[in-house]
Amino acid sequence: MDQYFYSTRIYDDFIILPEDEAHHALKVLRKKIGDKITVVDGKGGVYESTFENVNTLNCKLKIIHKNQNIEFPKHSIHIGISPPKSHDRLEWFIEKSVEIGIQEISFILTDNSERKNVKLNRILKRTISSMKQSLKALMPKINDIEPVKKFMENCSNSEKFIAHLGEEERNHLIKIAPTQGDYCILIGPEGDFSDSEIKKSQKFGFSQVTLGDNRLRTETAGVAACHILNLVNEK
Amino acid sequence: MDQYFYSTRIYDDFIILPEDEAHHALKVLRKKIGDKITVVDGKGGVYESTFENVNTLNCKLKIIHKNQNIEFPKHSIHIGISPPKSHDRLEWFIEKSVEIGIQEISFILTDNSERKNVKLNRILKRTISSMKQSLKALMPKINDIEPVKKFMENCSNSEKFIAHLGEEERNHLIKIAPTQGDYCILIGPEGDFSDSEIKKSQKFGFSQVTLGDNRLRTETAGVAACHILNLVNEK
Repeated sequence: MDQYFYSTRIYDDFIILPEDEAHHALKVLRKKIGDKITVVDGKGGVYESTFENVNTLNCKLKIIHKNQNIEFPKHSIHIGISPPKSHDRLEWFIEKSVEIGIQEISFILTDNSERKNVKLNRILKRTISSMKQSLKALMPKINDIEPVKKFMENCSNSEKFIAHLGEEERNHLIKIAPTQGDYCILIGPEGDFSDSEIKKSQKFGFSQVTLGDNRLRTETAGVAACHILNLVNEK
Repeated sequence: MDQYFYSTRIYDDFIILPEDEAHHALKVLRKKIGDKITVVDGKGGVYESTFENVNTLNCKLKIIHKNQNIEFPKHSIHIGISPPKSHDRLEWFIEKSVEIGIQEISFILTDNSERKNVKLNRILKRTISSMKQSLKALMPKINDIEPVKKFMENCSNSEKFIAHLGEEERNHLIKIAPTQGDYCILIGPEGDFSDSEIKKSQKFGFSQVTLGDNRLRTETAGVAACHILNLVNEK
C-alpha cells in the first residue's frame, strides 16, 4: 500500500531524503533511478518526485509536482496527557491519535504520574511514521513534559477541558465541545488528577468533562478524547 | 489499582480460582488467607470473596457477598473484523474494544484478508485480562474466523453496517446509528472489501457507512466503530 516519505530538506526543485528514509526506499522497497515517490514536509507540502541517484547517504530527488494547497482542518486538537508507565502504550497513543487526527501533543507531569519523562526521539519517530502511513501532510507539534500547573497557566487554546474520574456531575465531552474549536484537553494518570490540580484547572478556565462510564486506561482515554473532538466536527 | 479476578468455577458459597489467576494473586500480589478479592464470572456475577487457602493448584475462596444485579447496557455491539496481519495489532483491538465496551467479536475472512487465522487462545486470554482490568463483569463472546459471505448470511443483529473506503456517497456511522440498537458492523482488511463483498452485503441488509475522512488502519477502524456506537448511546 502507498505511503508517504518525509523530509525537511526541500529546495526549489530537489529534495534530499534523510538517511533512514532513503534506506527504506532503496534497500527495502528497492526503488531505482527515475522511480516516483511522494514526499511530505510535515507543514502541508506534498511533493511528487523521482530518484536522481540511489545513494543512501545523500539521496537526491527531483521535484516534478508540488501540491501545497492541502485542506487544513477548521478545528485544532491539543492533548495534554500524563504519559502512561509503559512507553509502548505511550507510543501507541501517538500512533492512533495521529491516524485519527491531532495537531499538538504535550506531556504533563501530575501529582500521580508514574512516568516522569518521555523518550522524545522515539516519540518523534513514531509520529513521523504514523503521519506517513496515514497519508497526512501535517506533522503534529510535540512538546516535552512539563508540570501540569505550569501547562495550565500557559495554555492559550480557547476551548479548554479536563477529563477526570471524580464524583461531581460533569458533561460528556461530546455534548459540550463546540464545532470548529481550538481545543485543549487534559488527560490524567492512572491515579487521576489530584484535587488540587482539578481546583487549579478551574481557575484557568478548564471545563470538567467525562468521556463516559467505562474505566479507560490513560492512553485509551487520550485516543477517545481525540476521536470525540474529531467526531464533533463531522459534517 | 484495583482489578477483578476471573473464574468460571463458582459454587454456592465458594469459588475455585484457576491456576493462572491464583498464581497472580498469591505469588505476584502476595495475598494471604483471609484477604479479600473480587471475582467475576464473565456473565454478570460479581463476588466479594476471601482466601480460604493459598494453594495455587486448588485455590479456594469463600464467597462473602454476591452481586448479580449489574446494569446490562441497552444496546449491543457486534464487530466482524478482518484480522490485521500483525497479531499484536489484533490483540490491541481486543483490549481497547473491551475497555470501551463490546458484546461480541467475530473474525471474518475476506478476499483481501492477509491473515487467514487467529490465535483464539491468546485472544481469549487478552479478552479476560482486559475485562478484569477495566472492571467489567461481562465477558464478550468471541467467534473464530469464517468467510465473510457466510457471516453475512447468518448475521442476526437488527442494525447492520459495513464500513468501507469506496467512492460512493455514504453516511457517517454516527449520523445513522439509532440509539439502543442491536448493532453489527463489518470492518475490512487493509485492501478494503472487494466489490463483490460490498454487493453481497447490500443483499443481506448491511448499510454502507464511513468512519470519517482519515485513513485508519484496520484495528483503529474497529476501535473507532466501537467507540462511535457507544457514544451514540451516551445519555
